[in-house]
Amino acid sequence: MKVLSDKHKTKNHTVVMVGCFDTKGADFEYLYTCLVSKGVEVITINTGVLGTTNLFPVNFSAEKVAINAGAELSKIRECNDRGSALDLMGKGVEKIVTDLVGEGKVSGIIGMGGGGGTFVTLKAMKAVPFGIPKICISTLATKDLSKKVGDKDVVLIPSIVDVAGLNNISRVIISQAAGALCGMMETTIQKDENNKGSIAISVFGNTAIAADTCTEVLKSKGYDVLAFHAVGTGGASMEALTLDGVFDAVLDLTTTELADELCGGICSSGPDRLTAAGQLGIPQVVVPGCMDMVNFGALSTVPKKYKNRQLFSWAPDVTLMRTNVEENEVLGKQIADKINTSKGAVTIVFPLGGLSKVGGEGEVFHDPKIDEVLFESIRKNLNKSVKIVEVNANINTTFFAEYAVKELLELVNTSRENK
Amino acid sequence: MKVLSDKHKTKNHTVVMVGCFDTKGADFEYLYTCLVSKGVEVITINTGVLGTTNLFPVNFSAEKVAINAGAELSKIRECNDRGSALDLMGKGVEKIVTDLVGEGKVSGIIGMGGGGGTFVTLKAMKAVPFGIPKICISTLATKDLSKKVGDKDVVLIPSIVDVAGLNNISRVIISQAAGALCGMMETTIQKDENNKGSIAISVFGNTAIAADTCTEVLKSKGYDVLAFHAVGTGGASMEALTLDGVFDAVLDLTTTELADELCGGICSSGPDRLTAAGQLGIPQVVVPGCMDMVNFGALSTVPKKYKNRQLFSWAPDVTLMRTNVEENEVLGKQIADKINTSKGAVTIVFPLGGLSKVGGEGEVFHDPKIDEVLFESIRKNLNKSVKIVEVNANINTTFFAEYAVKELLELVNTSRENK
Repeated sequence: MKVLSDKHKTKNHTVVMVGCFDTKGADFEYLYTCLVSKGVEVITINTGVLGTTNLFPVNFSAEKVAINAGAELSKIRECNDRGSALDLMGKGVEKIVTDLVGEGKVSGIIGMGGGGGTFVTLKAMKAVPFGIPKICISTLATKDLSKKVGDKDVVLIPSIVDVAGLNNISRVIISQAAGALCGMMETTIQKDENNKGSIAISVFGNTAIAADTCTEVLKSKGYDVLAFHAVGTGGASMEALTLDGVFDAVLDLTTTELADELCGGICSSGPDRLTAAGQLGIPQVVVPGCMDMVNFGALSTVPKKYKNRQLFSWAPDVTLMRTNVEENEVLGKQIADKINTSKGAVTIVFPLGGLSKVGGEGEVFHDPKIDEVLFESIRKNLNKSVKIVEVNANINTTFFAEYAVKELLELVNTSRENK
Repeated sequence: MKVLSDKHKTKNHTVVMVGCFDTKGADFEYLYTCLVSKGVEVITINTGVLGTTNLFPVNFSAEKVAINAGAELSKIRECNDRGSALDLMGKGVEKIVTDLVGEGKVSGIIGMGGGGGTFVTLKAMKAVPFGIPKICISTLATKDLSKKVGDKDVVLIPSIVDVAGLNNISRVIISQAAGALCGMMETTIQKDENNKGSIAISVFGNTAIAADTCTEVLKSKGYDVLAFHAVGTGGASMEALTLDGVFDAVLDLTTTELADELCGGICSSGPDRLTAAGQLGIPQVVVPGCMDMVNFGALSTVPKKYKNRQLFSWAPDVTLMRTNVEENEVLGKQIADKINTSKGAVTIVFPLGGLSKVGGEGEVFHDPKIDEVLFESIRKNLNKSVKIVEVNANINTTFFAEYAVKELLELVNTSRENK
């Protein structure tokens, strides 16, 4: 491993400081001073609807934050509804930070507060890509913030005491948080010279064998592989981290979340699935894995309209529904449409022997005619420039996995040669 | 506010690195390299029972960790019980880190892992005082870790992906965590010149008026005041932070947790309550606030043996039990015994007009005869050198609060003059 030196610290860092300066002015003044004393430039955003502070410069007033949420501060105040006020200020700050990130102005972001301050801070951080240091000092830091943090690399620091004025505890917490942020910003990521790149792969129980084989082959060739479980959150994480530039290529082996999005299954990851790699222009291989199924919970939870469809109990709390001809027609077009907009190279690989384990020969969802509807819908809607490889095997065979990896590495190598 | 410069960084930092080096050797090697490249000395402790690593020096082997828990690694392996293995390794690492802290060798501590690694890391951090930087990289960082973290100032960093080998995500997370730790260690806490010191105060709904008045007076005199709610965890936090040297003095206005400890109430904070200030030798004023009550949940949850006692429903989910003569005899002796061992100056202030709001004249728990049993038990068991001040007022009067503060400030000033 090559060790890069940290000697050449760049001191030209700009940090966004977010929070309610109306009620916590003294705490934020202290944080501001800590940051400035470390040679950092600070952009301040006030999300407190009750007022402002004159203890340090406020770059984005609460009025501006409200406007960025399409609202007016005076009206938010009149409403006197804490929940909707936070919601609007959260939206506004996310918009402002999105713009600042777009302008390349954010080297780090830090926020602080109780319930409200934590909410707006984490909202703001949604707009900041992976790898840009994010610190949230919170009274709730050790509680379950998983939904609010999502996939973001937010460093959580317990405030130990209420964020309500300075004392021997808050001074230490705030000073050290500023130190941590600067330490993170000054860190050079030490890379492994032998590593060829990082590949994201989407996986499901029903494509696990395929994913394992692909991972093994890719690792043996010097790549690292990050698997994302296509249960909705997994696909969303993969898309978000792809957009943040974390991966060199995507092996999208399990696009099943599109079927759940179409049919209302429990594993949808929204309409933006299968767009990030194309948007960023990194190479991707797409396999319509598990498009033969939609996921529901226990049998009793399957929507009424699907009661007469082919259902299969994969586990006591997981019921799979076989997708039908009409759905596959639509899904094929969706896949093609998404891939047609891709800025990077894409290859599609069809597993003619079945899209999943349960879709293999002799298995409950095996139905080559319906699969063919999907393939044909993709073929006829896809730009002619996109390569389609048809492999006469089930998705979970070594034969298929090796094909998928081969195609991916071809794209990766071509893309590198063109750079 | 005086801003101290960070120019004179001391690079002589020693960091403890804790985790399961058996299964996560590559990740820890990377962390080790990041730390060493920043000029930090690293003490490594392996809590992984399955084996070791030769990727970096291991200072405390899993064998040593087991021995420090009074166990043998080979037997832990034989048992093949993950839960009890973690428990023992957690105990062992806490003991080792306690010793290292005692030897003054710990400038910071960092650990990393999934469920098991997080458990042992947080156990190790229990032994590290407030203000010494602690970083835990965890797959569970955004989940509820409040019980495992407790009152400790642990910085939680989400691993984003499993801690299971290096990739484009883990490299960034680990590098930045090392950067954050160094940034924290290199931070000088900026102090407020006008601040006279930091006072801990214990409070309860039934002593809230007293605490508020004391806080106001102390703040007006330039002190900052940190309130701890005497609900068990609050008292324990106050004791722990006192031992960590956070406070200049303690105004222990609400010792009620001792009554809960004696009678099995829900607000006990264990047998060590009312010992930290004495152990550390900082000035304290003790008021036996709310010793007239024990706390239980809803009426239906009060233990059978207390069903015939005087009970009062403070809130639908809070039932208070009046302490009786026998209990006050014991509690008085406990208070005296604890104070007799104090290394610092102590003054006891008795509110002769009642120990709580509900203990005031005309209120449900008003019973001066039982209160007198407590006072007399303290008087007769207390060393003659300890000053007792008897104030003819209820605890929640301004008159009483001003007395308590006056006594505290006298102790603080005397203690400063003697330094």
